[in-house]
Amino acid sequence: MTMNSIGQDARPMICTPLVGMNEEQLVEQLQQVLGKRPDIIEWRADFFAELADDAAVLKTAAALKDIAGDTPLLFTIRSWHEGGQTIMLTDQEVIELNAEICRKTAIEYVDCELRNAHDHIRYLREASAVCGKKMIGSFHNFDFTPSCEEIVLKLIEAEQKKMDVAKVAVMPKSLEDVLALLNATVLAKRQLSIPLITMSMGKYGAISRMVGGVFGSALTFAVGAKASAPGQVPIEDLQAVLDIIDRSMDEK
Amino acid sequence: MTMNSIGQDARPMICTPLVGMNEEQLVEQLQQVLGKRPDIIEWRADFFAELADDAAVLKTAAALKDIAGDTPLLFTIRSWHEGGQTIMLTDQEVIELNAEICRKTAIEYVDCELRNAHDHIRYLREASAVCGKKMIGSFHNFDFTPSCEEIVLKLIEAEQKKMDVAKVAVMPKSLEDVLALLNATVLAKRQLSIPLITMSMGKYGAISRMVGGVFGSALTFAVGAKASAPGQVPIEDLQAVLDIIDRSMDEK
Repeated sequence: MTMNSIGQDARPMICTPLVGMNEEQLVEQLQQVLGKRPDIIEWRADFFAELADDAAVLKTAAALKDIAGDTPLLFTIRSWHEGGQTIMLTDQEVIELNAEICRKTAIEYVDCELRNAHDHIRYLREASAVCGKKMIGSFHNFDFTPSCEEIVLKLIEAEQKKMDVAKVAVMPKSLEDVLALLNATVLAKRQLSIPLITMSMGKYGAISRMVGGVFGSALTFAVGAKASAPGQVPIEDLQAVLDIIDRSMDEK
Repeated sequence: MTMNSIGQDARPMICTPLVGMNEEQLVEQLQQVLGKRPDIIEWRADFFAELADDAAVLKTAAALKDIAGDTPLLFTIRSWHEGGQTIMLTDQEVIELNAEICRKTAIEYVDCELRNAHDHIRYLREASAVCGKKMIGSFHNFDFTPSCEEIVLKLIEAEQKKMDVAKVAVMPKSLEDVLALLNATVLAKRQLSIPLITMSMGKYGAISRMVGGVFGSALTFAVGAKASAPGQVPIEDLQAVLDIIDRSMDEK
């Protein structure tokens, strides 16, 4: 079985997040989620109580990757700036921990927020490239949806910063905001040479998690065990909708 | 059991078309389709071989309505101008046949293309109102998608012409066209006091048939027995997607 990589297929990958506080919870969630056959699994390590203890993080990372087997893992420390948990680490320490994950575990992807300092991003880019690991350059706005043009620029920024994948998640205040996100996805898809991941969050945005793939998003987050962001749909539902969309696009 | 009417519920109604050439085929399609529990059924009478024979049309209409029972019926003669079959009737004869359907059958809805002459529309409006029947004012473009503003104006035109429901179906050449149709739906929904039905056709547009309800479309066409327009999704698939969308909008 070859490992799937983001952007490889026309059908978007389904990613389920793990949000446990400790290794025991994470292992339990992971085992539960693997039965539902996600395409990729994200460890949201900002929920991990021992995040400040590098050795504990690396040990748990190795344990999770071991259980996940061929299913790729994404290591993410989401900052409170962008909707994550409050953590004790500085931005620089976060970058260093990501570099350690690249160097010392078999985890395939790390997340890197685009707001990070240029030097930090360059450092992690180098560290990850050396180990053959991939970086997702991300931008989140939990308060509102920037204009279509601004979203496209954020996605372009990820490519300019040498990311392997560009990600934008934004909160809509209206249905027009959901359409703006989808429009930006179509436009960016044409301009970028790296895969992109976009989503509109919350109740209005839930449908973007279902149809985003049609507009060019290479990955969509689904609830496996527990949601990590508002509007996530259960993985079973998302798989069913993607099957139906596939059929509807094939036939005509 | 009370009859559902278009625009009554937040969840869009599913309409399946009948496209048989004669009463036998139509009855067979209808019986097949009823088992799949559509919310409303459209008789696309432009496929009917004996359309020029009023008595034959009225007899078949009565037979279909009899079998349909509480499931509402929509009588539609789609002109070739707007993607229908080539028929022998003039526009005026089509209007008159619709008026007869209103007067002499229990069919609940008739379709009236907005391109009809003002006098003809007024005549059918009066005939249908007297019998308590509803009119859907429709506009179709099988070649391309007009601008968002033009689509909104078409929907407004239906209300100005005293229709009970406004319908626009257009063909996209790109994913942006699909988004333009959905955008027009959101804008028109805010401005109109009558229910509206919108769809983007073909392969790209198929997803508008699934998510259009979220943006304000009150009805979506699904394949029950046989498709009547490009991009229609099987009714079972559409019901599954609408269930999932309902859940995703409820929970958050």
